[in-house]
Amino acid sequence: MVKLVAMFTRPEDPAAFDAEYFGTHLPLNDRTPGLRRTEVTRVTGSPGGETPLADLYLVTEMYYDDAEAMRQAFASPEAAAAARDLRRFAKGLVTMYTADVVETRPTPSGP
Amino acid sequence: MVKLVAMFTRPEDPAAFDAEYFGTHLPLNDRTPGLRRTEVTRVTGSPGGETPLADLYLVTEMYYDDAEAMRQAFASPEAAAAARDLRRFAKGLVTMYTADVVETRPTPSGP
Repeated sequence: MVKLVAMFTRPEDPAAFDAEYFGTHLPLNDRTPGLRRTEVTRVTGSPGGETPLADLYLVTEMYYDDAEAMRQAFASPEAAAAARDLRRFAKGLVTMYTADVVETRPTPSGP
Repeated sequence: MVKLVAMFTRPEDPAAFDAEYFGTHLPLNDRTPGLRRTEVTRVTGSPGGETPLADLYLVTEMYYDDAEAMRQAFASPEAAAAARDLRRFAKGLVTMYTADVVETRPTPSGP
């Protein structure tokens, strides 16, 4: 699997941002061809890091089968529409990166 | 679910870092009580982001059932040993944050 990760810094009006993001943007983003899974996380803190985080707010991961599927998705009209929508309400708030999942460990230890 | 995310900037010697990280650190980290799943990703690019990423190299996500399970894990001797190990070979490279998984969307659209 590969993924596209979108990191958002804290918006001026979090409630308005959330309404746009969850109400309009995610349903639009769901239409992107080849997208397998989307995980949205809300940042809660920064423990033990050596570099303080600059006001990270929300991080969303979008999974694709492989790099070619993600490349095709990026070239789709649906992805262009989602990107346009993002610029509409999240301008200046988002940083993105792509990554390969290189290891998944189902950890044996329990509580 | 909640998670701890560790973001690493590019080390001076990636091969040496990888040997330490995958060979020694991850097995040690697996022992942390309550840890449910670990996903390691290698950063491949920065498409469409408005802010260029400062040399991000590896991102690892460690999932726990809930905030209390993660709190207990952080207080464990196993987590202290993993943190000590990280300082040994990854000093100055790591930024961490915690997050709540607020939405998981199994996207219906296929290729």
